[in-house]
Amino acid sequence: MKKIDGGVCAAQGFTAAGVHCGIRRNPGKKDLSLILSSVPAAAAAVYTTNLVKGAPILLDKKHLANGVAQAVICNSGNANTCNANGLQIAEQMAELTAEALGISTEDVVVASTGVIGQPLDIAPIARGIPELAKLLSRDGSDAAAQGIMTTDTVKKEVAVEFELGGKICRMGGIAKGSGMIHPNMATMLVFITTDAAISPQMLRKALYFDVGSTFNMLSVDGDTSTNDMVVVLANGLADNRLIEDDEEDFAVFMKALNTVTMSLCRMIAGDGEGATKLLECVVDGARDEDTAKTVAKSVITSSLVKAAMFGADANWGRILCAIGYSGASVDVGRIDVSFRSPAGEIAVCRDGSGVPFSEELAKKILLEREIDILVSLKSGNACARAWGCDLTYDYVKINGDYRT
Amino acid sequence: MKKIDGGVCAAQGFTAAGVHCGIRRNPGKKDLSLILSSVPAAAAAVYTTNLVKGAPILLDKKHLANGVAQAVICNSGNANTCNANGLQIAEQMAELTAEALGISTEDVVVASTGVIGQPLDIAPIARGIPELAKLLSRDGSDAAAQGIMTTDTVKKEVAVEFELGGKICRMGGIAKGSGMIHPNMATMLVFITTDAAISPQMLRKALYFDVGSTFNMLSVDGDTSTNDMVVVLANGLADNRLIEDDEEDFAVFMKALNTVTMSLCRMIAGDGEGATKLLECVVDGARDEDTAKTVAKSVITSSLVKAAMFGADANWGRILCAIGYSGASVDVGRIDVSFRSPAGEIAVCRDGSGVPFSEELAKKILLEREIDILVSLKSGNACARAWGCDLTYDYVKINGDYRT
Repeated sequence: MKKIDGGVCAAQGFTAAGVHCGIRRNPGKKDLSLILSSVPAAAAAVYTTNLVKGAPILLDKKHLANGVAQAVICNSGNANTCNANGLQIAEQMAELTAEALGISTEDVVVASTGVIGQPLDIAPIARGIPELAKLLSRDGSDAAAQGIMTTDTVKKEVAVEFELGGKICRMGGIAKGSGMIHPNMATMLVFITTDAAISPQMLRKALYFDVGSTFNMLSVDGDTSTNDMVVVLANGLADNRLIEDDEEDFAVFMKALNTVTMSLCRMIAGDGEGATKLLECVVDGARDEDTAKTVAKSVITSSLVKAAMFGADANWGRILCAIGYSGASVDVGRIDVSFRSPAGEIAVCRDGSGVPFSEELAKKILLEREIDILVSLKSGNACARAWGCDLTYDYVKINGDYRT
Repeated sequence: MKKIDGGVCAAQGFTAAGVHCGIRRNPGKKDLSLILSSVPAAAAAVYTTNLVKGAPILLDKKHLANGVAQAVICNSGNANTCNANGLQIAEQMAELTAEALGISTEDVVVASTGVIGQPLDIAPIARGIPELAKLLSRDGSDAAAQGIMTTDTVKKEVAVEFELGGKICRMGGIAKGSGMIHPNMATMLVFITTDAAISPQMLRKALYFDVGSTFNMLSVDGDTSTNDMVVVLANGLADNRLIEDDEEDFAVFMKALNTVTMSLCRMIAGDGEGATKLLECVVDGARDEDTAKTVAKSVITSSLVKAAMFGADANWGRILCAIGYSGASVDVGRIDVSFRSPAGEIAVCRDGSGVPFSEELAKKILLEREIDILVSLKSGNACARAWGCDLTYDYVKINGDYRT
């Protein structure tokens, strides 16, 4: 499993592009992206569980029902959600894309991200799509990753190379996500492409399994977005033997997928709105995996824990508090808590009570950019990880007046 | 139902006091409070549902099992939670109080609030209790309310006068609560006293019913505290006929209790850590009360809604989003949303989609200190209210380094 360049265009047969079409006022900010597979690809997706759903999600469920897709069109700057004509606009986006690319409308995946509840004008998109079609290239992942960013401060892109039955396969992904992020089936927008050959059924199985320990263990602000979606396209151009069941190759494929998703998860958490730190909560010793996940998510979601991490304050009582109200059944009197970062590791709580520790060392550890919160429940063998970020002045600033 | 002065000493037979005993470094900040009824009183309490519980909670459950209490001792500055010797310290607080007042140890309610996981030294408390006993007076509510404050910026105190069978009764309360506040049975510390005569059974019934629509509908930051407690003492000195069943007097008593609790709820929400605005979400037209409550709580808890309110930004899409992920089963296509404040009222969403509105008027409405978010689900007759506050820079500041 080797990390490589190329993002969503690393796999054979995929091209991409991103342009500024005019949804956003700032001409320097790309707002429309396109990804194309040269041949129809097996496709699987997971969607937000929010009852309020972006219009594109409704369309995509229809388009992806047959497990096949060939292109993804995505705009930023407007979520096309809670608009009376939303579905019609999403359909037009698919039709215009299909027309420009000479493919079937049903093979187009549509995504939108941005403000909720403002009508989305099709005019700039209609101008942008033919332009995108012309710009499509093997070097286009960077531009496509930029075109889907909203409050993101960094572009999120990754790719890996792996082998299936002697054939070199590649998988890459881009993501956008910074606010309105909270684990629930799928969060944020993630587009993953691979040239591995895999059946739509097995692709779906791989994705559903994977998000349970990656994107669903990620929280920036506790708000589950209306437009979240993770889509994987697998076009089979690597020429490996088609993965059709739970064989060894499927395990390798799952590992590649997990490398890509875990990497994007960490990028999203680290670039959470206003974030200065990436937090990872590692829970072990749980009686079962659900307990471990519930505890890890509760810690990473607590506003008080997040604010303490911003202040590099080893206020571990808030971690115990968040475990206590998580809803998980745990033995409070057995909990150990430590903090870890490149600057070292320090134990702060043992068997549910505080232990003396060096505030100076704790501060040093918590001043780092990536912090692990280690929780041992000492009641079993299950473990889980969750990712989040600190709560900062800038989160408030960004969200205090997002629309202007 | 008339609002009166006197807080927790408004009812006959109650005295109170507050002092600085030395738990906190700042000598200007009171940190120990005492409330006494001249005779044993019927008593009822609700406690936090957090599995991590402050040591005082464990003791109080024992002391209040018989439905009788006579005094409340409460310190701020240290939660006496997650300490190996916590229960022993809480027991000592009860014993020292009983000794100083010449009452039974089992009739003392103990409460602590402040940092979790730091050993609580009994020495300053042992010095403070005899001093409090000497200072007890009918004018002591103010001092007692100050002594329980942590990050609170305003003292929370209220009292009402009402009639039961021709007898004048009084009920008053004090509260502390600013952070780590999220609805779950009981949140924050609230001490309520009344001279009405009511059986412990009916007092418990009244309290349990009331918190469902008051303190459990309040959220500052989504973190359910380890030390929350609401206690009511009813000493019967008003000489009304003892309330022993669901009679008319019970309804009057419930109304008095609700006036006191609702008033304290609004004070706590409005003084949420860093808050500049009190938010009230009013949901109507729900198919049942659970749905209405779930929706109201989800809106009031959303970090994105709270940050938008701080910025006076009419970003109603975030309200739809929070309703959508609340877990309540609602028909998204029927939802109406309006904002209301002393500056006016404005509709922003109808049948789940945006309607044109004056951004100028919306801004004016949202710049006020108290804002109502009105949600109509148009699917039934049930309604609910929840209280919260905006998310501000100061919340981050207060919680970024709370312990120093």
